[in-house]
Amino acid sequence: MSSVIGEKLRISIFGQSHSEAIGVVIDGLPAGVAIDEEELLAFMTRRAPGRGAHTTSRSEADKPRFLSGVADGFTCGSPVCAIIENTNTRSKDYSNLREIPRPGHADFTAFVKYGNFHDIRGGGHFSGRLTACLCIAGGICLQYLKTRGINIAAHALEIAGVSDRPFSPVKPEITSVLHSEPISVLDKNAGERMMEEIIKAKSDLDSVGGIVECAICGVPAGYGDPMFDGVENILSRIIFGIPAVKGIEFGAGFSAARMRGSECNDAFFMDGDAVRTKTNNHGGALGGITSGMPVIFRAAIKPTPSVARMQESVSLTERKDTPLEIVGRHDPCIVPRAVPVIEAAAAIAICDMIL
Amino acid sequence: MSSVIGEKLRISIFGQSHSEAIGVVIDGLPAGVAIDEEELLAFMTRRAPGRGAHTTSRSEADKPRFLSGVADGFTCGSPVCAIIENTNTRSKDYSNLREIPRPGHADFTAFVKYGNFHDIRGGGHFSGRLTACLCIAGGICLQYLKTRGINIAAHALEIAGVSDRPFSPVKPEITSVLHSEPISVLDKNAGERMMEEIIKAKSDLDSVGGIVECAICGVPAGYGDPMFDGVENILSRIIFGIPAVKGIEFGAGFSAARMRGSECNDAFFMDGDAVRTKTNNHGGALGGITSGMPVIFRAAIKPTPSVARMQESVSLTERKDTPLEIVGRHDPCIVPRAVPVIEAAAAIAICDMIL
Amino acid sequence: MSSVIGEKLRISIFGQSHSEAIGVVIDGLPAGVAIDEEELLAFMTRRAPGRGAHTTSRSEADKPRFLSGVADGFTCGSPVCAIIENTNTRSKDYSNLREIPRPGHADFTAFVKYGNFHDIRGGGHFSGRLTACLCIAGGICLQYLKTRGINIAAHALEIAGVSDRPFSPVKPEITSVLHSEPISVLDKNAGERMMEEIIKAKSDLDSVGGIVECAICGVPAGYGDPMFDGVENILSRIIFGIPAVKGIEFGAGFSAARMRGSECNDAFFMDGDAVRTKTNNHGGALGGITSGMPVIFRAAIKPTPSVARMQESVSLTERKDTPLEIVGRHDPCIVPRAVPVIEAAAAIAICDMIL
Amino acid sequence: MSSVIGEKLRISIFGQSHSEAIGVVIDGLPAGVAIDEEELLAFMTRRAPGRGAHTTSRSEADKPRFLSGVADGFTCGSPVCAIIENTNTRSKDYSNLREIPRPGHADFTAFVKYGNFHDIRGGGHFSGRLTACLCIAGGICLQYLKTRGINIAAHALEIAGVSDRPFSPVKPEITSVLHSEPISVLDKNAGERMMEEIIKAKSDLDSVGGIVECAICGVPAGYGDPMFDGVENILSRIIFGIPAVKGIEFGAGFSAARMRGSECNDAFFMDGDAVRTKTNNHGGALGGITSGMPVIFRAAIKPTPSVARMQESVSLTERKDTPLEIVGRHDPCIVPRAVPVIEAAAAIAICDMIL
Repeated sequence: MSSVIGEKLRISIFGQSHSEAIGVVIDGLPAGVAIDEEELLAFMTRRAPGRGAHTTSRSEADKPRFLSGVADGFTCGSPVCAIIENTNTRSKDYSNLREIPRPGHADFTAFVKYGNFHDIRGGGHFSGRLTACLCIAGGICLQYLKTRGINIAAHALEIAGVSDRPFSPVKPEITSVLHSEPISVLDKNAGERMMEEIIKAKSDLDSVGGIVECAICGVPAGYGDPMFDGVENILSRIIFGIPAVKGIEFGAGFSAARMRGSECNDAFFMDGDAVRTKTNNHGGALGGITSGMPVIFRAAIKPTPSVARMQESVSLTERKDTPLEIVGRHDPCIVPRAVPVIEAAAAIAICDMIL
Repeated sequence: MSSVIGEKLRISIFGQSHSEAIGVVIDGLPAGVAIDEEELLAFMTRRAPGRGAHTTSRSEADKPRFLSGVADGFTCGSPVCAIIENTNTRSKDYSNLREIPRPGHADFTAFVKYGNFHDIRGGGHFSGRLTACLCIAGGICLQYLKTRGINIAAHALEIAGVSDRPFSPVKPEITSVLHSEPISVLDKNAGERMMEEIIKAKSDLDSVGGIVECAICGVPAGYGDPMFDGVENILSRIIFGIPAVKGIEFGAGFSAARMRGSECNDAFFMDGDAVRTKTNNHGGALGGITSGMPVIFRAAIKPTPSVARMQESVSLTERKDTPLEIVGRHDPCIVPRAVPVIEAAAAIAICDMIL
Repeated sequence: MSSVIGEKLRISIFGQSHSEAIGVVIDGLPAGVAIDEEELLAFMTRRAPGRGAHTTSRSEADKPRFLSGVADGFTCGSPVCAIIENTNTRSKDYSNLREIPRPGHADFTAFVKYGNFHDIRGGGHFSGRLTACLCIAGGICLQYLKTRGINIAAHALEIAGVSDRPFSPVKPEITSVLHSEPISVLDKNAGERMMEEIIKAKSDLDSVGGIVECAICGVPAGYGDPMFDGVENILSRIIFGIPAVKGIEFGAGFSAARMRGSECNDAFFMDGDAVRTKTNNHGGALGGITSGMPVIFRAAIKPTPSVARMQESVSLTERKDTPLEIVGRHDPCIVPRAVPVIEAAAAIAICDMIL
Repeated sequence: MSSVIGEKLRISIFGQSHSEAIGVVIDGLPAGVAIDEEELLAFMTRRAPGRGAHTTSRSEADKPRFLSGVADGFTCGSPVCAIIENTNTRSKDYSNLREIPRPGHADFTAFVKYGNFHDIRGGGHFSGRLTACLCIAGGICLQYLKTRGINIAAHALEIAGVSDRPFSPVKPEITSVLHSEPISVLDKNAGERMMEEIIKAKSDLDSVGGIVECAICGVPAGYGDPMFDGVENILSRIIFGIPAVKGIEFGAGFSAARMRGSECNDAFFMDGDAVRTKTNNHGGALGGITSGMPVIFRAAIKPTPSVARMQESVSLTERKDTPLEIVGRHDPCIVPRAVPVIEAAAAIAICDMIL
């Protein structure tokens, strides 16, 4: 039941990197949700390889084809299925990966779990390419949420140690995210310096990681449930579904561990007739329930494990240590492309919560 | 459906701080699991108030009473229910909390969600006291996991900025955790300095937070599922069910964001006939599936929001800004007591994964 | 995960016939639902042994004790737990049942599944006594549904071949059910003849079964979902959770199999501004979605398997055919007591659907 | 979440009668399950229109196209998605159906739920055509179950009042089902008389229903869980997902309601070293758990609601009574085609139970 998530809105993702198609079924959207396919495609383009720069050689035709659930531009109430055909799946030989697992990838664990039946080509179901399916579902959710007054935006808060300006936690500058740049940032200069670091890593046959910050604005107070269905529970479960995410924190997050209570507690005040908090260390949820303040979280993205340098691995058949050199061009930093994926995953989680 | 979690092992937690009892139903344990009630009680004592020091005045009789599912010391195959009676529930007046929500607590969001029906006494269902139920279920899971060769231990990695020695990520010194100390640590001196900081905060009418590190050893490779049912997804969802947790990270976690791929990738090597990794930046899971290496994670705990200092809040009926002073003695640091709760939650998640 | 059901309203049932207590957790009720404990007790009394006549010797004190979730007579938003303490659990020797399984009971299958760990006393978790927990949860749901204009009633449509008058399928005479009689029926005379058959069976050391008909009135059109979450799917799954149910049918049910389409199709007509059907062969649901007409279903109840006659069984240890005589007094017909249980289960299912 | 079912094996069905494609995602199959596409196609042909005779004019190209999850004829461990493209979707005008709902169909309830967004063409997601997706998933499950020694077969036990010979409940003559005949029966003569009745109904511009009996042989004792995850619960929930099913019964079913306990109880005996029952009134499950005897159930199928006779309906816009005449050719009896669908649904449920 690995690739199904959600209670009221149920998402089922399928496909391998080199299967005939990848896709997603979205079950639970109400009838009458308008789907702007142009806007969806524009959103998905932010995730496509090539963005951020210098990436995998494969050209993707990521335009989703809707098989069901949409009629005349609106959801009809039955499950939406959209697929992306995998054209141009190179027939190159992947048997090496079956033999010698790539460090940092799922080759080894997939071998343990699925044996030689694992579809190793391009990473199979573990491929980052599958995040395109998250973007289809999430892109639709983002459009729906907008009609409910909820906006979600993310940016690269940090890449290779270079920091962007953070969102204002109490009033996120959502409209100021520069999505048109190669890297979605608030501060254009930071984006440029990040790009320099990415290029430097690439020339070193290496890769870099980073941190994505995401803000969800406009969720009314009172959504989410205490204990296991709170805002943090639901968001963290889906965010860790994105390959390479190694950590998540809400509001003050890990820095809260070093605060004193008097400093960490967010003072309430009346903002007109609305109860608000002066700071937002709680990150928009108290006891798992939304407070009406922006939900703010950050996700740590590890550096792309596919690096061209010689690495240490093992031969699974010969059971001995074996060096591994990964050939081909690889994306030296997936953080820029992870930004819309984080937005998409957050949108799916929020939809499930408010439907 | 807030307080139910799990697929194969389903945990349902109930109770409010001042209801007649709190408790848990554990559905899905196989028949024949031995339950050592002495060991369970010893485990639960590590969570009880008083541990760590200077805590809430309420004395708790936390001995669980098994209502069902256990016969002659073994699970019988039907759901286990255990409760803790809430004796000594003081009848003090809590109406003030309904009027003026405490910053950092769920009073406000509970009011939005449940209105005046919310059982505000002692925090209701949001009370940290409910973690005793997690400890019952988790304590049983810990005993079961031990029979499967799986051991789980946590310690206070950091409190008020004072750091304990971290677990060795490739071979956690699980047996070396000093659970007999007021604070579970690896380095006794660190524990003493932590305690000094806690006492200092208390004398300042304030509180401090920290970080708990947890290691899960002995899970064979191949458990967990890609995408949404991976090790990180399952663990993070339950860990955020513990009040005050604001972040979680696996393996290298947020520090992976600053590494290069060549540094972050864990080299495989043959350790006898077993495939292992030289480092453990991946934290025991690749593609959501266990690698056979220890699963290592850290959770950030915010400082206790109940501080005796004057705070800013609002009157929910008069709709105006209102100062708030919380009277009574409070635990200036819940991190020591959170250590066994983290172990318990991890044990529940791992049981659900391997059953 | 056997004893947990529901999506939005999640019910978790626990207990064995002779465990310390049996009970139920109800997770997902909104805050502010009024619970009339007197009315609940009156409802539960309809299920209690003694009703219908001549039943098991055990006297039950079935008054539920609320451990959580209720404050001042209203749900507070957190999970409701109610238990019934098992006082007077006789210490008689049940080892015989472990050795020689009773035909028609779950002794054999429980042995296969749980081995000697199964709590065989009184049937353990398989005991009809557990339906008291369904009645607690369902009784609360019935009270809640009434506030939403939804009424549910059942009656013994048939016992030992004696038929009661059926509900009018288009306008059920819900108020005319004679719940005060030993057997809930529409036609008092039918009830008397049923009782005669029950007494006759009892004097023959035997038992009889029957059919319960249930009507759910007032559910607005548009609830339920096509395919697997339709009205029939949800109701049938929970109704088969009641021991001894062997079949369920909706509307015309099995008799529809012998109709022609022109006869089975229910003609639509305008009833004022409402669309209604002249007949109700569809049983209130089309495509899984409520039509606004009463939801009508019937459940077949097999005769009580505990009969005093000598029966054929096997010795599980000696692996040979062995006769079995069950001693003690037994209820010769559980159908009268099953009527409120069916109402309760239906109420839980409908609540889950409309919340 | 209407069209998703299963816990360990999760099936997600999508598509409308006239959408670009219909299909199914199967999440949870282990890696290494062999899929014989020829055998699958042969199985699906038994469901295809034309079988049984004289059916809808639309010619279907029901060969499934596997988009994911299968590599070199074996499942690879990741979700399987298979679709059937909807070629030849006639562009005829369906607006009449939106205006005047067909009696016995879901047009009215879909209108209430989805408004004018409902994809009314060909019945949309409510179309019997969607059962082809059940057959894809179920056909694969049938192949997998065979490797585990489990066989499933169904036949038309009754059509228009004409009865086939029933399965022997203790030793089903599974191999003797005449699937090659237009109607799957045990008794060829019964099948011929059924066909005569179908033709007669057709010439009367009418339709007929029937009963399908299904046997599941080879499930070892001990599967299924008490209360809500028992054999009957799981099977009934999915079987009611098949359009036109109005009732289900297990073992003796409704006739058990008229038996005495001494007659209904199935005597245990030793059959070599196996515990078996002499009769099978319990239908293969006691307390929800398989007994090792065949699981036997029957499903009632109502007559096809699409009949060519003039019917009474309403105009949803003019809010007045309006006659309706459905034009075009229709299948006068879907029971023959329902036989493999019942087998498919049963296979999915059993797979979910034993995985």
